[in-house]
Amino acid sequence: MTDRNDSDSHKGTPKDSHYARLRRAHREAQPKPAENGTLHLYGLHTVRAALDNPRRKLIRLMATRNALARLTEGRSGDIPCPVEAVEPKAIDRLTGTDAVHQGVLLETRPLLPKPLNALGDTDLVLVLDQVTDPHNVGAIMRSAVAFKAGALVTTSRHSPVETGVLAKAASGALEHIDHLEVRNLAEAIATLSAAGFQTVGLDSDGPDVLENTAKGPKIALVLGAEGKGLRQKTRATVDDLARIDMPGAIRSLNVSNAAALSLYICRARL
Amino acid sequence: MTDRNDSDSHKGTPKDSHYARLRRAHREAQPKPAENGTLHLYGLHTVRAALDNPRRKLIRLMATRNALARLTEGRSGDIPCPVEAVEPKAIDRLTGTDAVHQGVLLETRPLLPKPLNALGDTDLVLVLDQVTDPHNVGAIMRSAVAFKAGALVTTSRHSPVETGVLAKAASGALEHIDHLEVRNLAEAIATLSAAGFQTVGLDSDGPDVLENTAKGPKIALVLGAEGKGLRQKTRATVDDLARIDMPGAIRSLNVSNAAALSLYICRARL
Repeated sequence: MTDRNDSDSHKGTPKDSHYARLRRAHREAQPKPAENGTLHLYGLHTVRAALDNPRRKLIRLMATRNALARLTEGRSGDIPCPVEAVEPKAIDRLTGTDAVHQGVLLETRPLLPKPLNALGDTDLVLVLDQVTDPHNVGAIMRSAVAFKAGALVTTSRHSPVETGVLAKAASGALEHIDHLEVRNLAEAIATLSAAGFQTVGLDSDGPDVLENTAKGPKIALVLGAEGKGLRQKTRATVDDLARIDMPGAIRSLNVSNAAALSLYICRARL
Repeated sequence: MTDRNDSDSHKGTPKDSHYARLRRAHREAQPKPAENGTLHLYGLHTVRAALDNPRRKLIRLMATRNALARLTEGRSGDIPCPVEAVEPKAIDRLTGTDAVHQGVLLETRPLLPKPLNALGDTDLVLVLDQVTDPHNVGAIMRSAVAFKAGALVTTSRHSPVETGVLAKAASGALEHIDHLEVRNLAEAIATLSAAGFQTVGLDSDGPDVLENTAKGPKIALVLGAEGKGLRQKTRATVDDLARIDMPGAIRSLNVSNAAALSLYICRARL
């Protein structure tokens, strides 16, 4: 459950303009696929999943000799793009030395988000209201795939950008879930509700716990950003608000942990 | 559930010496409290919780005027250490510009880990088998406090170090949970078992799901690192191994998500 008291964001108030500036600078420092139309994916799991995704447009694979052996182990068929054998340092130079690239880097085109009407047949959808941290969103995608959510819905503004960091945290999940992007989240939630989804917003002030609230037969689970929670309009639009009770001295979880737990709770009720 | 197939670690094999070197370099780049005996905590939640912890030895607080106002809002009593009013940039210089310090930095002594026999009266303990990533361990501490685990047990080697990054991810939880450090994890698990704890290791090959396995009346939950899972000796020592079933195309979670979920499942059964 995200906790609105932890707010590090008082948008538009002059006293926080320093942080607003910092956040903007940080956001702008994130590599955007649009800038050059390509994306660097790294890490064995992430690259393996991308190679297996027929929707991925691949450009080239850079790999160390050992990593290539591990990548092709048990793989049927050739690597479907040009392969360059490199030393680890060549990859370090592209990812930075902090990235655990495991000796593989795949240059690809990003997967383009789809519109809401591309939603396939599914009983569980995860909606993110301005959650942008790539580590958290990557981990959330991984949990969403693990608990068989059919799609991730985000707004086109204040939305996560497909980066190497996000893809690494997603550990292959990026290739397994449809990312749907909408302009207006409240409209999208209303559309999901009309399509038979119970839309449930996670909120620490929810009148009942998620375990009692989630009923289905189809659920769209809506989560807000850590510190900010759901926006007022989102809160007013969902069918139900629900909380997760925690008995301890801290009553909020990291947003990806809250997502994993609420996906688990919803999946158990479907 | 951590997934041993994602292994980025084949310790001791020559082919991975580059990564072993990288990991070591990364580990060594982490600021260690022992080096100068002080620690920088930042972020409003984290600093507020540290100021409220009577066990913390405080050195000085650096804060912007606005952050200090937010920090003292609703606080009874003075800040129990010298306070310096600073510009945000002064804190940036100490934390790096990536850190969301929210205008406050507290210089303190680290909390020293305690031995296993300092374990207080509790029905839930979390044991980490070589999980070291500070973001993950911080988030795990936060979930452990949220689900009222009485202690976090780690080994003294390959253990998380109390850093600003870990503390920020823990969002105050560092002040609320006892960190117990042991030399030999298998011995510690045996000791917990003898003390009436059902020791349960999370393992994707576990014979039954955690929901059916966790019984109590006291539980020590044991988690391994992502990619490596539990060590053989740990696996052989716990009373039970259990898995979490995931219906989707990915069958492993980020380690902090797996921790949150298994703490939730155990807490519900106690």
